[in-house]
Amino acid sequence: MFANLPTFSKSGFKAQKRTSLTGKTQLALIAIAVAGTFATTLQCPVLAKSTSDLASWNDGPTKESIVQFVKSVTDKKSADFVEQEKRIAVFDNDGTLWCEQPIYPQVEFIIGCAKEYAEKHPEVQEDPLFKAAVQGDMATLAKAGPRGSQTLVNTTHNGMPVEQFADVVTKWLSEHKHPRFNEAYTSCVYKPMLELLAYLKKNGFTNYIVSGGGTEFMRPWTEKVYDVPPEHVIGSTCKLSFSNADGKPVIKRTTEIDFLCDSERKPIAIEKIIGRRPIAAFGNSNGDMQMLQWTTAGSGKRFGLIVHHTDAEREYAYDRDSKVGRLDKALDEATKQHWTVVDMKNDWKQIFSFQK
Amino acid sequence: MFANLPTFSKSGFKAQKRTSLTGKTQLALIAIAVAGTFATTLQCPVLAKSTSDLASWNDGPTKESIVQFVKSVTDKKSADFVEQEKRIAVFDNDGTLWCEQPIYPQVEFIIGCAKEYAEKHPEVQEDPLFKAAVQGDMATLAKAGPRGSQTLVNTTHNGMPVEQFADVVTKWLSEHKHPRFNEAYTSCVYKPMLELLAYLKKNGFTNYIVSGGGTEFMRPWTEKVYDVPPEHVIGSTCKLSFSNADGKPVIKRTTEIDFLCDSERKPIAIEKIIGRRPIAAFGNSNGDMQMLQWTTAGSGKRFGLIVHHTDAEREYAYDRDSKVGRLDKALDEATKQHWTVVDMKNDWKQIFSFQK
Repeated sequence: MFANLPTFSKSGFKAQKRTSLTGKTQLALIAIAVAGTFATTLQCPVLAKSTSDLASWNDGPTKESIVQFVKSVTDKKSADFVEQEKRIAVFDNDGTLWCEQPIYPQVEFIIGCAKEYAEKHPEVQEDPLFKAAVQGDMATLAKAGPRGSQTLVNTTHNGMPVEQFADVVTKWLSEHKHPRFNEAYTSCVYKPMLELLAYLKKNGFTNYIVSGGGTEFMRPWTEKVYDVPPEHVIGSTCKLSFSNADGKPVIKRTTEIDFLCDSERKPIAIEKIIGRRPIAAFGNSNGDMQMLQWTTAGSGKRFGLIVHHTDAEREYAYDRDSKVGRLDKALDEATKQHWTVVDMKNDWKQIFSFQK
Repeated sequence: MFANLPTFSKSGFKAQKRTSLTGKTQLALIAIAVAGTFATTLQCPVLAKSTSDLASWNDGPTKESIVQFVKSVTDKKSADFVEQEKRIAVFDNDGTLWCEQPIYPQVEFIIGCAKEYAEKHPEVQEDPLFKAAVQGDMATLAKAGPRGSQTLVNTTHNGMPVEQFADVVTKWLSEHKHPRFNEAYTSCVYKPMLELLAYLKKNGFTNYIVSGGGTEFMRPWTEKVYDVPPEHVIGSTCKLSFSNADGKPVIKRTTEIDFLCDSERKPIAIEKIIGRRPIAAFGNSNGDMQMLQWTTAGSGKRFGLIVHHTDAEREYAYDRDSKVGRLDKALDEATKQHWTVVDMKNDWKQIFSFQK
C-alpha cells in the first residue's frame, strides 16, 4: 500500500468522482441507519467451516506452490522442516488481503475526517493538505504521499485517546461501503486469501499483517475479519503520549509521525517488532518488495508470493502504470527470485464472498 | 531498569572495582575456555518439571494474591473471567526477572564494548562518554543516563548486521559472570519469577518483557531462560537500516536512538506493539510505575506487583536511595493502588537456582 501514492499525480479525476459517490453513499447509509437496520458493527464474510483448504483456488502451479511449501516445512521428515514457532508469515494488507482500488479505504477515511475537521476548524482551510482533502484534489494529496496522509489523520485526531480512535474507525467502517461493490470495506476481502490465512494457521504458522496502513486503523477489525489479533498487526504509527492526571492514566494520539511502514521500512519493522525473519511473505506492489526480499533471502525453505490484479471484471486489473498499488519493480523481481505470482483471473475461482 | 541511572552520580567506586574484577574474571574465563570446557552457549537454570507451581514462594498473602488473581480470571464461572487471548502479562527485566545489582549487566556489557572500541578508534578517546566508560567514571556515565548508554552501544556496533549483534551478546554472556555470585548473568535470574512466568503461561497468559534494556540485547537469550520468545520482547532500540547490495538484503544497526523504553514510554510501547492493555504487570522500580498504572487502571480484574529487594544476604537490599533500580515513588504508589509488594526476604524460599 501507499507504494505509489507519491506518483499518483495529475489524473485524480476518478478518485474525485469516487469521493462524491461516497458522499452519496454516505447519505444513503444515514437513511438506512435511521431506518434502524444499521448498527456500529463490522460487516465481514464468514468462512464456511465445511469448505476444504484453499477451496477458492483453482488447481495449478500457483496453488501447488503454496501446498508444496507448506508440506515441506511442516513435515518432520523433510529436510526443510521448520519448527512451529519459526513459521512466521507476513502479509501486506491493501491489495493483498482487501481491495485497494479505486483508492485505499484509509485515504477515503482520511478525506472524510479532514473535511469534517476543516468545517469545525476554519483555520486549517488554507492549509494546502486540508484544502486538497476538502476539494478532493488527489494530485496534491498524492504529492504529499503517505507522510501527507498520516499528517492529516494525526491532526484531525490529535489528543484523542487510543480506544476512542478505535471506535471512530469501527463506526466509519460500519457506515461506509465500497463505491463499486456496494459492500462494506471489510467484506471486500479476498476469499482465497482468507482461506490461505486459515490454511497457514492450521499448519502452525503465525500470521502477521505488515502494512503501510495505520496500525490503529487496522487493529479494530483484523481479528474479526482475518483472525489476526491486534498484537500481530504492524503498520504506520503516530507518536503517542501518556498522562496520568487525577490518577487516570490515558494514552493519546499526537500529531507527530512515529513510523511509516513501507518499502525498506517493512523488513525493518519486522525485525524491530517480531525479531525473527519470516519464512513466507505475501504482497502485491512495489512497496512489498523489500519485505519479500528479506523473507526469501533467509536460509532454508522460503516462500514469496505476489498477488497480481488481472481481473477487471470481478475486481480490478492493474500493475505497471497504476496510481494505486503500482507493481513493476516487484513484478520483475518476482521473476528473478522465482516468487509465486497469483494471476487473480485464472488462479482464483472466487474473489469475494459476496460474489458467486 | 535505568530508572535512576541519571542520579547514579558520584559514588562509582564499587562499580569501578567491579569492572576490574570483571577484567580478572575475564582472564580466568579465557583460561577455562582454552582448557576446552567453555563454549559460546548460554548458562541458565533448568526448572525441575516435578516442582509444583510457585514452589519457591512461601505461603502467605503475597503468594495468595497471585493465586487468587489467576483463579478469578481463568474460572469461566467467575465474574472476572478473562478470555485467554486477553490474558497479557508484562514483566520488567532488570531487578524483576534477573539481578540488576551491583550494576545492570547491560551496562557492564556496554563498558566492555566501549573499551574495546576506544582501543581501535583512538579518535573517540577524548569523547566524554567513551572516556567515562574507559576510565570507569560512573558519575559521568550516570549523568548521561540511558541515552548515553544507548549512544555508546550504538556507536560501538554501528553498521553491524542484527544477527551478528545477537552473536556478540551471546558470546559476551557466555564469557562473563556476575562479580558476586560467580555465575553467568543468565543464571542470576529469580527462581520464584521463573515459576511465576511458567504458572501464568500454564494458565493461558502470554508473557511479554517490557524493559529499558536493549531489545537486541535481550532477545538472544530470553526464550531459553524465561520461555519468552523474541516477538514478546519489547525494549530500547536503535534505528535500523535496510540495504540490498548484490541481491543480499541486510538489516544493520545505526548510531541513532529509535526508542528508549522506560517510565511513561513503557505503556506507550505496550500500546504500539501489543495493542492490548495487559491485565497483569510486574516491576521493581520507579521506571515501572507507569506500566503498572496503565495496566491496573483498566476495567475488570487487574494485577500489579512490585518486587521489593529486601534480602542483602541472599541477594541485595535496596529501595529509596539506590543508585540502581530506585524504588520510592512506585513503592508509595503500590500502597495507594493496593499492588502486591513482594518482600523478597520473607516471600521467597529460594532466590537463585544455584543457591540452596
